[in-house]
Amino acid sequence: MESAITKLVDVFKNYSGKDKKLGKKEFRKLIETELNHFITNADNKRAVDELMGKIDKNKDVKITFDEYFILVTLLATTKYNQM
Amino acid sequence: MESAITKLVDVFKNYSGKDKKLGKKEFRKLIETELNHFITNADNKRAVDELMGKIDKNKDVKITFDEYFILVTLLATTKYNQM
Repeated sequence: MESAITKLVDVFKNYSGKDKKLGKKEFRKLIETELNHFITNADNKRAVDELMGKIDKNKDVKITFDEYFILVTLLATTKYNQM
Repeated sequence: MESAITKLVDVFKNYSGKDKKLGKKEFRKLIETELNHFITNADNKRAVDELMGKIDKNKDVKITFDEYFILVTLLATTKYNQM
């Protein structure tokens, strides 16, 4: 469990910029590369931008770690309800 | 990343009872077995019960998946801020 949590932290660190946030380009790359099974249209820019809008709570078109973890929670809850 | 999320879902499923929740005993077992590095006094019953109280939002002494993921988020945020 601990390695799974560490992995989720590492993924954010790997994709976030010097400002410790994910811009549009970084967010798209993360979704396309890391979540292409969980998210069906992971390579559809418009769909990914829409997803980004849903978790970008302060609407600055940047995703912080807290906002990223809203997505992780959504995905985990969906996965849990599917199993 | 997807396998990490699946792992977190599996851990909850493995420890939760037929009621799909973690009682005190199951919660202690999960903390002691899965989180004994992230949580320093994982084998201290009083400390673990106190932690359970913090995430048990409806105070029914049972932890749902949503409440469990509050703990996951807390641990991931702590880990992120340490790194």
